[in-house]
Amino acid sequence: MTFDRMWTDLQPVGRDPRSGGYRRFAWTAEDAALREWFTGEAAVRGLDLTTDRAGNLWAWWGNPDADGPGLVVGSHLDSVPDGGAFDGPLGVVSALAALDALRERGWAPRRPLGIAVFADEEGARFGVACAGSRIITGALDADRARGLTDADGTTVAEAMAKAGHDPTHVGPDPEALRRVGAFVELHVEQGRALVDAPGDAAVGVASAIWPHGRWRLDLRGRADHAGTTRLADRDDPMLHLAEAVTAARRAAEQHGALATIGKVRVEPNGVNAIPSLVTAWLDARGPVEADVRAVVAAVGAAARTEPVEESWTGPTAFDADLRDRLAGLLGAPVLATGAGHDAGILSAAGVPTAMLFVRNPTGVSHSPHEFAEPADCHRGVAALARVVEELG
Amino acid sequence: MTFDRMWTDLQPVGRDPRSGGYRRFAWTAEDAALREWFTGEAAVRGLDLTTDRAGNLWAWWGNPDADGPGLVVGSHLDSVPDGGAFDGPLGVVSALAALDALRERGWAPRRPLGIAVFADEEGARFGVACAGSRIITGALDADRARGLTDADGTTVAEAMAKAGHDPTHVGPDPEALRRVGAFVELHVEQGRALVDAPGDAAVGVASAIWPHGRWRLDLRGRADHAGTTRLADRDDPMLHLAEAVTAARRAAEQHGALATIGKVRVEPNGVNAIPSLVTAWLDARGPVEADVRAVVAAVGAAARTEPVEESWTGPTAFDADLRDRLAGLLGAPVLATGAGHDAGILSAAGVPTAMLFVRNPTGVSHSPHEFAEPADCHRGVAALARVVEELG
Repeated sequence: MTFDRMWTDLQPVGRDPRSGGYRRFAWTAEDAALREWFTGEAAVRGLDLTTDRAGNLWAWWGNPDADGPGLVVGSHLDSVPDGGAFDGPLGVVSALAALDALRERGWAPRRPLGIAVFADEEGARFGVACAGSRIITGALDADRARGLTDADGTTVAEAMAKAGHDPTHVGPDPEALRRVGAFVELHVEQGRALVDAPGDAAVGVASAIWPHGRWRLDLRGRADHAGTTRLADRDDPMLHLAEAVTAARRAAEQHGALATIGKVRVEPNGVNAIPSLVTAWLDARGPVEADVRAVVAAVGAAARTEPVEESWTGPTAFDADLRDRLAGLLGAPVLATGAGHDAGILSAAGVPTAMLFVRNPTGVSHSPHEFAEPADCHRGVAALARVVEELG
Repeated sequence: MTFDRMWTDLQPVGRDPRSGGYRRFAWTAEDAALREWFTGEAAVRGLDLTTDRAGNLWAWWGNPDADGPGLVVGSHLDSVPDGGAFDGPLGVVSALAALDALRERGWAPRRPLGIAVFADEEGARFGVACAGSRIITGALDADRARGLTDADGTTVAEAMAKAGHDPTHVGPDPEALRRVGAFVELHVEQGRALVDAPGDAAVGVASAIWPHGRWRLDLRGRADHAGTTRLADRDDPMLHLAEAVTAARRAAEQHGALATIGKVRVEPNGVNAIPSLVTAWLDARGPVEADVRAVVAAVGAAARTEPVEESWTGPTAFDADLRDRLAGLLGAPVLATGAGHDAGILSAAGVPTAMLFVRNPTGVSHSPHEFAEPADCHRGVAALARVVEELG
């Protein structure tokens, strides 16, 4: 199966030998290697490769301008820090493998078929997730996107330019979107709904993406000597961080939501220095928007700061007709997810969109331990091929 | 006064324009600039400069091998991250200025007079405070010292070699210590004992250094996706950090000690990733060793980990005769401190040692806001000159 060969090809790219996880951040050398790999796979298959204004890659079989709109399948290739091998690449490799399987049986599409690789889905480097799809749909302002900075102060514009993508083109791209009649993204499941579901379902169909967002907590204190400053004289922001972390968990439990503080920056970060500033990032999600908002408010109150909203995505229900059609076609369970995806951004922009999830035996994701059984990955390819056959 | 000229010369070295604080870490370019500055000041005064096995600098007036042991005054020039201008440099600049003042009045020492600059007092880069004095007294093992690493994985040995100091020489240096008949370190006060003391005391004399240490807390969890992992399925080490921070403050209050978590490292440190590992450093000190140990145990219990002791210094009482003699000579109050100093390391190694503190109006230290009034700095120089006259 071509899936296994491609999977092996991708394995070393951006892998950290220490953690075994991946560091594939947007507009880096690792990202360039992944884009080059995809360009090569498209060329071998005779697909026409185009790059849109955000740097997303589209490999077309057929001419979507003349004969479109087409059906698009795909996902992304970038990762979180120390991420797993599956989140993103599984969807891209499965799309190529499904195309191969269909061609092998002599199938030809009724409408143009595209395979998409979205840029900077994780937002690991510049802080905004799904940047590529948000830019072309206009959900992320072009100037704001260009000005986003990484930890070293490099802007998206500078990083793009260095990678050979002209940042002056960044902006909404109705031409690229017009070619997309429907979009289907296959993704590794990031929870245990399929494992815990009755029966033996290797593949599921998404119903909705929970509302979710990211907030920054600026916890200010006063730098001072840890060995000489009386407790009563201290203004130590690390105490506010402790209160924020505790409140996030408690409020999430109370409101039936998820809340996480997974990123923290301490200044000056010296063993014998009371910090002057602790910056923490809160990720909050849940089935109900009001509950998510209540969690964020509770964390802000506990940490005595006003959380700064860095991103927000309202609830996304995928196209109901498409969802029911695919669930019926595959005999697959339907499930909601807390994770954001480019499919959610396209869906919010009015593109008929669906997602397939491939079973994850532990539910672990965004971790070197993220996993899906090879047999389940192959079932995912077969399911995606079946969907393309049906819709393509 | 030569003090002001030297103070102005040092001002720009390693200053971060953003915070206004100093970043003068051992064996860096900034450190080299400071050492070069001191070498120049020693040469101008006709002092003989020697470097000991740990890279500490000694500028001698007279021959301590032939006519010693001598009296040594001095301090250090390195800083914590975003530290103040006074912690360290005040003692070195005051020592040189006191020498100038004494020479101006035609005074000549009865025994050799040395001015010392200790290397890596803060331990900001490699984690062990007072590394220079600990190495020459044997309190820090040579191989352990050479193998200490900074955040980039650079070892002390590599950093020293790059700075031109042969790391193979690192080790106890009885020859350098034999030259030291007594050591007096002047330092900015790092609390408010002098400000709060009755009368108008610009200078105080140290009685003792509290027992103090640093512990590392390795808080392990399981990396996972922040948006999809159920609260019940999480093993999130950030919650243990919150418990450690809260317990540190509570236990310090209970036991009349100080405890601080000022340095934290989160892996992978992604907004939407539950951390796999949070490493936190605990600084704990207090007048009574058993109370400090009780605080550390309470923090370990709360964080469900065994704190790893990275350094420990027992209580240090300075030479009682010297203390009383200087307090009488200067009419200065006597006070204890929670901060470690090279003077404490030398005292523990059997060198008759004393410290003078210069009043700090806010008590703030290890911060860009650290301050002493110029008039108080000049009073410190005068007091140090008086002490050298008495003991030298």
